[in-house]
Amino acid sequence: MTQPLPPDQRVGYAVIGVGELTTEELLPAFEASKSSRLAALVSGDVEDARRLARAYGLRDEDALSYDDLEKLGDREDVHAVYIVTPNSLHREYTERAARMNKHVLCEKPMATTVEDAEAMIRACDGAGVKLMIAYRCQYTPQHWALRKLVQDGELGAPRLLDSTNTQMETDPGAWRLKMDLAGGGPLPDIGLYCLNTIRFVLGTEPLEVLATQVRPEDDERFTEVERDFAWIMRFPDGVTATCSTSYDASTARYLNVLAEKGRAVMDPAYDYQGLRLEVETPGERSERKIPEQDQFALEIDHFSECVLRGERPFTPGEEGLQDQRIMAALYESARTGRPVKLGAAPGRDVFRGTVPQEGREG
Amino acid sequence: MTQPLPPDQRVGYAVIGVGELTTEELLPAFEASKSSRLAALVSGDVEDARRLARAYGLRDEDALSYDDLEKLGDREDVHAVYIVTPNSLHREYTERAARMNKHVLCEKPMATTVEDAEAMIRACDGAGVKLMIAYRCQYTPQHWALRKLVQDGELGAPRLLDSTNTQMETDPGAWRLKMDLAGGGPLPDIGLYCLNTIRFVLGTEPLEVLATQVRPEDDERFTEVERDFAWIMRFPDGVTATCSTSYDASTARYLNVLAEKGRAVMDPAYDYQGLRLEVETPGERSERKIPEQDQFALEIDHFSECVLRGERPFTPGEEGLQDQRIMAALYESARTGRPVKLGAAPGRDVFRGTVPQEGREG
Amino acid sequence: MTQPLPPDQRVGYAVIGVGELTTEELLPAFEASKSSRLAALVSGDVEDARRLARAYGLRDEDALSYDDLEKLGDREDVHAVYIVTPNSLHREYTERAARMNKHVLCEKPMATTVEDAEAMIRACDGAGVKLMIAYRCQYTPQHWALRKLVQDGELGAPRLLDSTNTQMETDPGAWRLKMDLAGGGPLPDIGLYCLNTIRFVLGTEPLEVLATQVRPEDDERFTEVERDFAWIMRFPDGVTATCSTSYDASTARYLNVLAEKGRAVMDPAYDYQGLRLEVETPGERSERKIPEQDQFALEIDHFSECVLRGERPFTPGEEGLQDQRIMAALYESARTGRPVKLGAAPGRDVFRGTVPQEGREG
Amino acid sequence: MTQPLPPDQRVGYAVIGVGELTTEELLPAFEASKSSRLAALVSGDVEDARRLARAYGLRDEDALSYDDLEKLGDREDVHAVYIVTPNSLHREYTERAARMNKHVLCEKPMATTVEDAEAMIRACDGAGVKLMIAYRCQYTPQHWALRKLVQDGELGAPRLLDSTNTQMETDPGAWRLKMDLAGGGPLPDIGLYCLNTIRFVLGTEPLEVLATQVRPEDDERFTEVERDFAWIMRFPDGVTATCSTSYDASTARYLNVLAEKGRAVMDPAYDYQGLRLEVETPGERSERKIPEQDQFALEIDHFSECVLRGERPFTPGEEGLQDQRIMAALYESARTGRPVKLGAAPGRDVFRGTVPQEGREG
Repeated sequence: MTQPLPPDQRVGYAVIGVGELTTEELLPAFEASKSSRLAALVSGDVEDARRLARAYGLRDEDALSYDDLEKLGDREDVHAVYIVTPNSLHREYTERAARMNKHVLCEKPMATTVEDAEAMIRACDGAGVKLMIAYRCQYTPQHWALRKLVQDGELGAPRLLDSTNTQMETDPGAWRLKMDLAGGGPLPDIGLYCLNTIRFVLGTEPLEVLATQVRPEDDERFTEVERDFAWIMRFPDGVTATCSTSYDASTARYLNVLAEKGRAVMDPAYDYQGLRLEVETPGERSERKIPEQDQFALEIDHFSECVLRGERPFTPGEEGLQDQRIMAALYESARTGRPVKLGAAPGRDVFRGTVPQEGREG
Repeated sequence: MTQPLPPDQRVGYAVIGVGELTTEELLPAFEASKSSRLAALVSGDVEDARRLARAYGLRDEDALSYDDLEKLGDREDVHAVYIVTPNSLHREYTERAARMNKHVLCEKPMATTVEDAEAMIRACDGAGVKLMIAYRCQYTPQHWALRKLVQDGELGAPRLLDSTNTQMETDPGAWRLKMDLAGGGPLPDIGLYCLNTIRFVLGTEPLEVLATQVRPEDDERFTEVERDFAWIMRFPDGVTATCSTSYDASTARYLNVLAEKGRAVMDPAYDYQGLRLEVETPGERSERKIPEQDQFALEIDHFSECVLRGERPFTPGEEGLQDQRIMAALYESARTGRPVKLGAAPGRDVFRGTVPQEGREG
Repeated sequence: MTQPLPPDQRVGYAVIGVGELTTEELLPAFEASKSSRLAALVSGDVEDARRLARAYGLRDEDALSYDDLEKLGDREDVHAVYIVTPNSLHREYTERAARMNKHVLCEKPMATTVEDAEAMIRACDGAGVKLMIAYRCQYTPQHWALRKLVQDGELGAPRLLDSTNTQMETDPGAWRLKMDLAGGGPLPDIGLYCLNTIRFVLGTEPLEVLATQVRPEDDERFTEVERDFAWIMRFPDGVTATCSTSYDASTARYLNVLAEKGRAVMDPAYDYQGLRLEVETPGERSERKIPEQDQFALEIDHFSECVLRGERPFTPGEEGLQDQRIMAALYESARTGRPVKLGAAPGRDVFRGTVPQEGREG
Repeated sequence: MTQPLPPDQRVGYAVIGVGELTTEELLPAFEASKSSRLAALVSGDVEDARRLARAYGLRDEDALSYDDLEKLGDREDVHAVYIVTPNSLHREYTERAARMNKHVLCEKPMATTVEDAEAMIRACDGAGVKLMIAYRCQYTPQHWALRKLVQDGELGAPRLLDSTNTQMETDPGAWRLKMDLAGGGPLPDIGLYCLNTIRFVLGTEPLEVLATQVRPEDDERFTEVERDFAWIMRFPDGVTATCSTSYDASTARYLNVLAEKGRAVMDPAYDYQGLRLEVETPGERSERKIPEQDQFALEIDHFSECVLRGERPFTPGEEGLQDQRIMAALYESARTGRPVKLGAAPGRDVFRGTVPQEGREG
């Protein structure tokens, strides 16, 4: 195991947005990280942020309100922000951070529109800061093992991929159910994992999509966004993917790759822990036991290392923009009942940057 | 366990078609059956059939050529035929059997066209003989347990179903790859399991389908039929199913039901043995251990009991015809790139007959 | 798959003893067998036996009472008996069958004393008939796969084996709980699987045993026999086995082999179906998928083939006698609190005969 | 999730001994802890310790040599030590820490002799400092779930327990293979998990043990200590446990509890991550999904909370002493070939203190 960097050599982060993801996952992830350091917390509730800051060894002045964000501009120990706000605010905070010359690590989905995603890339490019979308599942050793299985041909050519991501959303008032905050329903939130991970595993981009959605008329949760979404993507080399997502089903998160010589199964595929990779070939079903690490720590540390070394992140803004374009096509197909073609993007990993640690090992 | 019927009280069958399914599965299934008896074998290779007949305790005259099928007309110990020929011949043998007043158990898919399927129903109705399509997976205790889980509401309302059935077809000369014999590629052969089992589990009929297919230009196996097929079906009550099938992938056969309170997984779902049913709820993943029985014996015995009691089979010709109509819609959607609507079939199990033993128990 | 022999070329069996094992397992096994044929049923309840006989296509005169056993003497279509009586009667029926020159397939445990086991061998040797103990688990492809894993060195040298076989015995009146009928409690009935399968997997014989048992004072079921039995066996080459069995625990049947390079797990190891073999090596846990066959049919057919070819069965009387000796040592150790040494039996498979089909394949 | 305490309110630890366990597990565990803080590192290699100290945000003067341990005496920010030295040195460092009035958290096994264990308790009692043995597996939610399953009677009365812990020790020069440093072979190191966890799960103490061991003559690794050890323990209420351990087998770590109504399986049972708890009842095998936490953090935080609240640790010195006594009895039994009785310890959890967080929840 690599030793952690001394705290004063690490990249310092201001986390913008303090919800459950921040308190349960991101703050512990900074503790487990090796080249990243929590430096400030930006929240709507400064008192609460202050309590949290103390628990993590920060000073009171490290907790700020959203309005005071620009106070971080002069802080030399804050090199980057990690944006964890509702989706439609990603653009605003990216632009404000870029104006302060802070690097931006932004939660997925990147934005709620293609236009916002494009603006975020422009803002960061213009300011000369790095932009990365927090696609956790492109940084775990388990997902890299699956990608290698598929791309190194150990299973022969892939033919069909199949992925589902569902969870139960019970609160009608949740921001995830408001179109103007979330930009959609389960598709951009959790269905995005299916979409993004399949693209990562294949390394190629979809050519065409067809989709359908369900929005029941009598459920107050789904007056603005879809309840269920199901879709098919056609990839180069005759690869087809079927996917589905729902906000009204018990948690299920899996990914199957059916290939000439065998099948790879990740189940669960998108959980924060307990990822399970199995390979089934004629006569055998085998679980690959890969030690687990804090997934968020891996992701954050990748961005820190890119900052420290001046490298392009593996999942830069362009990677998030591509998902945004595909999701726009998916919603169009669901609306029109027609397949929608996507712009050509030949080659491998055309939107991605420097391969992370997990991809260089093993 | 119910005791078997004495041989002379059982329904006697002539098996028409002697390929691997017959020798490896059906003949042993007759040994394991309780109300069915092998009475004759009809084959293109009479010598081979004769050897087999002897091994199963039949006389030489119980082995016949296809041309001699009508010799069975007078045999009072032959009450039914079990048709295991290439798909496009199902109609002819059904009609010839019906003319001899023999009941007809016919392998799936029922036929290669809707017209043939309709003709088969007419022929059997006209002759007053029973017609059943051999949907093995509607007769196992495992599939019935899954159906009950879903229909009794133990998992809450179902939202998404997802099923895949793939296998590797290596022989370019196989009749399964010839359009005029098979009527299609993997869809009618193995994808049909996904389609039919989902209909069985839900008990309802699809309203609309959308589909896509892959037929590579440079593979001599797939000059006539598709290599891969992927589709989405919209069912009543906002239920959506995603499915895929391939003739160029290693064996994988699974079915997922995602519902409000939990997920049911059958994996494998369509194998001759080793069916595995798991239920995942928050905090627990549980395998239901259900003793296995010979699936073909269960299916054949159901037909025998229907013959003996004068009842309508659970999967009569109408059940097969409905699949034929859906497959026609699927191919149309794949060809046109448009969703295809299906005729209304409100209600539950509208094409099915008497519930079999496995459905009455447990 | 090998074709079955025509009925008139098969070995005909009289099954002596008609309990649950006979009706649920053995009679269906004869249907699934390829060189064996059910010819007669011998029971305490002739009426019941007659009903069963009819169901399996036998005539009324094929059902006999225990007293009439000798009527089979002249029956040329009865070549062998399969003894399924309470344990302490195995000797009597073996001797009566040998006097009629019928071959003897006898359920495990072979007997209730070493003396009876020796007498059974003498009786069969004297009459020139074959004697085999029905050690089902030495005839399945799954157990052979495990044996090969261990003996071919794929896992390196074995160090520790560990096996448990438990089930709940609720009926205080069951013959299995009577010392004079059963010869002991769970040890000779189900613990014997652990003992016998470990010997089979290793191919060597234990040098020394130490044991302990539990017989509660206040449970009417266990006034004669032990409730639980736990023991350790020392084998050549520094191999140690730990085992346990109980008649008062829910069903659990497993076997672990811990070796230098990996671990093999059978769980369940002794069920009639659903045997599961997994191999765990650093980084991987892999299930070997081996098609299941009727275990009793495999065992019976081995004996038939030995009869037809004049070969020594793989598990002859001497194999059963060895277990009888080891069980006597185990009870002595539990009684005295001392380790008990066993007679030397150097070499491999010293008590076994012709390797069965499953051992010659794969 | 409880919020962590601010750093200055946490218990500060000096870790004594810097091997793989310290660098790979303990230092990250301090990062994940909520009431504990790394304050100093004591090592034979001060340079190395200094590098590590820096990486974890400590100052150079926080890295000390073993000789300089007493410099910590005046450090008010060091409240406790965590001893991770070879086993035979546990006593010395415990006594030196007690003399400095520092609380002692000591790795298992507590010592290499009963006398040393007793002296450690006396030293800590005399100094008025707390002593806890680091039995990680008494602090995880998974092991508590198992204990509750068994003790709350959900599975009925337990009858048999069975546990194995093996790993491959390849380096003949390892201190774990030296009798004077380790006090034994695999038994005190990894077999101790079986022993200790079974006592924890049952809550009762063994009455009698019988054991056997293997020490090959021709393996340079095992000139001083045993290679394999196997044993049986008799507990109150007619419960029997079979165990085994080896230093010459691939990793396997499992625990089975066979009870009247079902079986509980932990496999793996003793790993640092990926613990898996399954419950098998007739008709069902169910995996309980319990979120994983850093096991060492849970254990260290329990000790910190005992220090902060003035409570007796759940696994105090007396708990370690009891294992030491049982191991002495086990070695005696293996040497003499006789069962060895243990002193009576009626009641439940007689050697344990305050129930930890994991035991109060769920």
